[in-house]
Amino acid sequence: MKEAVDLNCDMGEGFGQWVLGDAPDDEIMQIISSANIAAGFHAGDPNSMDRVVKLAQAHGVGLGAHPGYADLQGFGRRYIKTDPAELLNDIVYQIGAIREFGRRHGAPLQHVKLHGALYMEAAVNEDLSQMLVDTLQTTSPDSLLFCMGISKTYAAAKRAGHPVIREFYADRDYDNSGSIVFRRQVGRPDPAQIAEKCVKACKTGKVTTVEGDEIDIAFESICFHSDTPGALVMGQAIRAGLQDAGIRIATAAEIAKTL
Amino acid sequence: MKEAVDLNCDMGEGFGQWVLGDAPDDEIMQIISSANIAAGFHAGDPNSMDRVVKLAQAHGVGLGAHPGYADLQGFGRRYIKTDPAELLNDIVYQIGAIREFGRRHGAPLQHVKLHGALYMEAAVNEDLSQMLVDTLQTTSPDSLLFCMGISKTYAAAKRAGHPVIREFYADRDYDNSGSIVFRRQVGRPDPAQIAEKCVKACKTGKVTTVEGDEIDIAFESICFHSDTPGALVMGQAIRAGLQDAGIRIATAAEIAKTL
Amino acid sequence: MKEAVDLNCDMGEGFGQWVLGDAPDDEIMQIISSANIAAGFHAGDPNSMDRVVKLAQAHGVGLGAHPGYADLQGFGRRYIKTDPAELLNDIVYQIGAIREFGRRHGAPLQHVKLHGALYMEAAVNEDLSQMLVDTLQTTSPDSLLFCMGISKTYAAAKRAGHPVIREFYADRDYDNSGSIVFRRQVGRPDPAQIAEKCVKACKTGKVTTVEGDEIDIAFESICFHSDTPGALVMGQAIRAGLQDAGIRIATAAEIAKTL
Amino acid sequence: MKEAVDLNCDMGEGFGQWVLGDAPDDEIMQIISSANIAAGFHAGDPNSMDRVVKLAQAHGVGLGAHPGYADLQGFGRRYIKTDPAELLNDIVYQIGAIREFGRRHGAPLQHVKLHGALYMEAAVNEDLSQMLVDTLQTTSPDSLLFCMGISKTYAAAKRAGHPVIREFYADRDYDNSGSIVFRRQVGRPDPAQIAEKCVKACKTGKVTTVEGDEIDIAFESICFHSDTPGALVMGQAIRAGLQDAGIRIATAAEIAKTL
Repeated sequence: MKEAVDLNCDMGEGFGQWVLGDAPDDEIMQIISSANIAAGFHAGDPNSMDRVVKLAQAHGVGLGAHPGYADLQGFGRRYIKTDPAELLNDIVYQIGAIREFGRRHGAPLQHVKLHGALYMEAAVNEDLSQMLVDTLQTTSPDSLLFCMGISKTYAAAKRAGHPVIREFYADRDYDNSGSIVFRRQVGRPDPAQIAEKCVKACKTGKVTTVEGDEIDIAFESICFHSDTPGALVMGQAIRAGLQDAGIRIATAAEIAKTL
Repeated sequence: MKEAVDLNCDMGEGFGQWVLGDAPDDEIMQIISSANIAAGFHAGDPNSMDRVVKLAQAHGVGLGAHPGYADLQGFGRRYIKTDPAELLNDIVYQIGAIREFGRRHGAPLQHVKLHGALYMEAAVNEDLSQMLVDTLQTTSPDSLLFCMGISKTYAAAKRAGHPVIREFYADRDYDNSGSIVFRRQVGRPDPAQIAEKCVKACKTGKVTTVEGDEIDIAFESICFHSDTPGALVMGQAIRAGLQDAGIRIATAAEIAKTL
Repeated sequence: MKEAVDLNCDMGEGFGQWVLGDAPDDEIMQIISSANIAAGFHAGDPNSMDRVVKLAQAHGVGLGAHPGYADLQGFGRRYIKTDPAELLNDIVYQIGAIREFGRRHGAPLQHVKLHGALYMEAAVNEDLSQMLVDTLQTTSPDSLLFCMGISKTYAAAKRAGHPVIREFYADRDYDNSGSIVFRRQVGRPDPAQIAEKCVKACKTGKVTTVEGDEIDIAFESICFHSDTPGALVMGQAIRAGLQDAGIRIATAAEIAKTL
Repeated sequence: MKEAVDLNCDMGEGFGQWVLGDAPDDEIMQIISSANIAAGFHAGDPNSMDRVVKLAQAHGVGLGAHPGYADLQGFGRRYIKTDPAELLNDIVYQIGAIREFGRRHGAPLQHVKLHGALYMEAAVNEDLSQMLVDTLQTTSPDSLLFCMGISKTYAAAKRAGHPVIREFYADRDYDNSGSIVFRRQVGRPDPAQIAEKCVKACKTGKVTTVEGDEIDIAFESICFHSDTPGALVMGQAIRAGLQDAGIRIATAAEIAKTL
């Protein structure tokens, strides 16, 4: 049974005039404790970054860089076969951009979370995960690395003693391997069901998989997606459910101190 | 008569497989004291940034961010009518990227220099120059701002007490207003002539304009362009000319301390 | 008093996962007679083009290419200082793309309409308008060119005998010069008012300007924008208003035959 | 023993100010009989397309569209996991662009050849190859499809009765499967050796593989790459070698008539 958990959400995932999802940024910010901010490769532009970083700072939400594949059209949800060293450069670039907006608005970089297909690639690519951890050890030793507990990313961070946060995915399904089932399009989930799934995971450390089994799931942060249809109501339901169950929502930085 | 001067050059202006100019980066790095590194908008990609930032650090060359308009095809040499607040976000983004690669390779950000049409726009756009200086005062109070002495950028930096470096353009022509004559394409200049022009400017503080007059020109750094045909030989000629004239080449950071 | 008028709308202005405006494409297609389809530079991607071109063909809506400045982030609403010959190449490229999807789905290219800042630039840039007309005379002599009656584009088309359609802007304001007042953001207009403005223009050939005067306005097509808030209801109101007033809605190609 | 063969080359593979390779376009055009012109996704911009298409027309070189993955930074040499229907839309878009420049300069589209990783993907992806052939049957039934004889693309074209040209790669190695060995970077080959390899293949229908064996290779066109170091001299050597061996160089369209 968890006393506290972080609640994180991908933010700033529009581009130019386009917005993604139906949830206003400032309302989402009131629910969450950590924000993963799109850094221009899969979504986000300098204007959205400036605006959303400022909003995160104003709401006391932990600032996270959310690097993705360089693929605006595919929203970073398409795998691109790339040399890990080159992917790492893409990641460094995007981290720098978000960190600079944080510097402008007085918000230090709390964490790094890869996006979409890049997150999934790092999860299984040991070289990429190792390089990422090594680089963060140089550039950002205090910045938390968000990942799945089952991932190579997690293993690499633990080996290096780099601070790491495991995620539980509220609006994604799990399979028996403990991995989320990645998909390019998602439907509108039932908020009550999602909230219940989160509370159960916090209380029991268990989740039901797509195969119908119960597996153990260890995590320090719950993730939901702002582009999931009905994201705001879903996020509010998760927050209320956790609070009703006596589970406090705290920034990942605060949670990390207790680990 | 100057005792010392900075010698700066735009670097890393390829993209993907493409390179610009005929001068190898590592040979240019041996000549210059400050490098303006393309940050992905008009040129440069994360791989080139990583490589060139590392090279600058290895050669003791001052690290500079070189933000441009978001215009790869036009190489940042086309004016784009944009709200100054939005341009500033583009600039912050690019600065952050270069700063992060510097962080990776142990090179602090020495300076910021705008590129091409954005440099020229800021020179005449008081709002943009003021916003840029205000932002640097927050994010990077020690980073030098490179500009023309005649520009609004210079005036804004001086008003705010922000450290600023004025440039002399070795391979661009001046008009009687003290502005460089901007052009999208340049020919192959004569190295000896360019070197002589630089030495004269350092010794006498004068330059001959396209109108045929001599005007006063105050500066702390000499700029040449790596995409000018014959850039390496030109740069070597400038360096040799200065040294023969007893003028030391020093990083902009060192020059700035004497101001 | 017009017997018939074309009703055109910009379509397919999303990108990747992003959509623009709240009006479903297939419902807009039921209202209009000509579609201006974004071709990838300011909006639109090959998937949206394929889908929207197919939809236009299915609804008997005239197929139009809608080339814009290469500026996804600015949605083609920012002026980019570019050589007319280069702009023309951008336009040719985008026309080719839309024409090819038309070829795939059995829809010939009915018209070309420039987008946003490029439309406004051509309106005042005689060289660009002349080059565009000259090129269309070679590549697409039967494709109608959409423009403002007051524009250089219209004058160039008339001089060359190229078929041309003048537009009336339902959801933009006019000034006394007969030009629309271009803006990057628009509010939610009143559908009844817009419809009345259109009917009046068809009946009397007059429009009230922002200065409060009535000016003459000649046109063969009415344009409204699918990203204007409430676009669908506005479009339905325009259509109903015209029909109630006994004015038939017909494709630009059909209207052009009567000119 | 072949009486005639087509000689094709990728062309227009710069972007904006950047050029690729050391071979001037107009000199390459004097050597080849078919040009595969980059269409903006992996390389090429509307200005280069206009220029190179015009050049092809002037030299009587067969005009080819050369669609690639949307990956300027990776030069289309990185695999991107994409739905075949979406890839096909990308291909249609690029074909349309090149066809339109051909229309402008009086050059009909002779052929379509996919680029880099997309060429290799189609070679093994039956769905993509089938969709491409089906689409060409609608949009361009006379345009030749270039591919490897061993590919799914070739099989799909033959099944549909679509005109198809098999390629022999002068400056790439073969393995025993009959596939070329794809690589992102290539060295400078020996022109005489390359020419000899081509002549032998034309005379005997054999090529030596990286495994050291001789395999049969059937083809109607020889391909070399303009970005291979020393491309011009290599191309000239191939041309001279073929002519010395009494093998005529003819456009793919002419070759296809004899099949």
